[in-house]
Amino acid sequence: MPARGDHDARRADVSEAVWRVLAARGFGGLTLRAVAAEMTASTGLLTHYFPSKRALVRHALDVAEERSETRARQIAEAPGLPALRAALLDVLPLTAELVAMSRVWVSFWDAALGDPDLGLRQTQRYVRWRARLRVHVEAAIGRGELPEATDPEEVAAMAAAFAHGLVVQVLFDPDRFPPARQTTLLDGFLSALPRA
Amino acid sequence: MPARGDHDARRADVSEAVWRVLAARGFGGLTLRAVAAEMTASTGLLTHYFPSKRALVRHALDVAEERSETRARQIAEAPGLPALRAALLDVLPLTAELVAMSRVWVSFWDAALGDPDLGLRQTQRYVRWRARLRVHVEAAIGRGELPEATDPEEVAAMAAAFAHGLVVQVLFDPDRFPPARQTTLLDGFLSALPRA
Repeated sequence: MPARGDHDARRADVSEAVWRVLAARGFGGLTLRAVAAEMTASTGLLTHYFPSKRALVRHALDVAEERSETRARQIAEAPGLPALRAALLDVLPLTAELVAMSRVWVSFWDAALGDPDLGLRQTQRYVRWRARLRVHVEAAIGRGELPEATDPEEVAAMAAAFAHGLVVQVLFDPDRFPPARQTTLLDGFLSALPRA
Repeated sequence: MPARGDHDARRADVSEAVWRVLAARGFGGLTLRAVAAEMTASTGLLTHYFPSKRALVRHALDVAEERSETRARQIAEAPGLPALRAALLDVLPLTAELVAMSRVWVSFWDAALGDPDLGLRQTQRYVRWRARLRVHVEAAIGRGELPEATDPEEVAAMAAAFAHGLVVQVLFDPDRFPPARQTTLLDGFLSALPRA
């Protein structure tokens, strides 16, 4: 029986391999076989960790969420609109690491549309994300950057829409959407919001 | 050997079954077996039409493109901004039929990110779509609805981003994004564009 330290190290290896498969092939290409090949291990070993495809997908979602939550973040210069801008920059594929992360999440949309449990997870992810964006919109209203009449929920939904739709276009055309243009487009969107 | 008419009818049946599988499971769930089950036919019959998974996916893409191109369109009241609005309404999941279509295209993004040929098809789809949107933006500038200084390519990319990002949120939360709210959000986005 391996020592506890070995066990934890192996779990970390498995999670790392799962992430590499996700980054290369998305949730659609995630299989025990692909993870095993990535680890130069046997599928038999993997079934010890993941008795089913479902268990593998659940773990992959946890890995993707942890990676997303612990990644480096944009530093907002101030609350309100600058914080909203930073939060939206956080989801744009501005670096190779973020391209991989975006690619994983776009692939998750397909997986989630085909599975009610995963679909609910994605619905809740959106609810939480819009709530975080809404905090920045409300701060922007409080600071007089946006008009009192602004509906924070609507602006949060519009901002989320703009950012995710831009992500997809970038993934399919990185040459036409280099990081500088992504930022320019985001600033164009933000500056178009009606000002107080 | 079946008569030509039978052959064409069978091809139409196959395409219809392919579409139903796409609408229910997306490109990620598209298999010969699923199409055969949908037709109550044997997988053997299907291999006559599709010698490989690749051939099936190619045909499914053709079916999806044809369905998208021949669907009912919003009628624009005028060129310029009203035409831009109509073109963007065209991609929102406002009806059950359009929800299915959106679901298929979101699933295609994952398939296309994992396959260079399909990825190129999606890149080209975006290039063509932005070019169509750009025509409306240019008309809006020509009609004095948008400022002369507007960059049509940037507004086309922003509009495409906004619409597709909204599509994804709607698919995961139809109750929070009923058709009336989708339209309101789109109008909010359009009215935020700087006016001439």
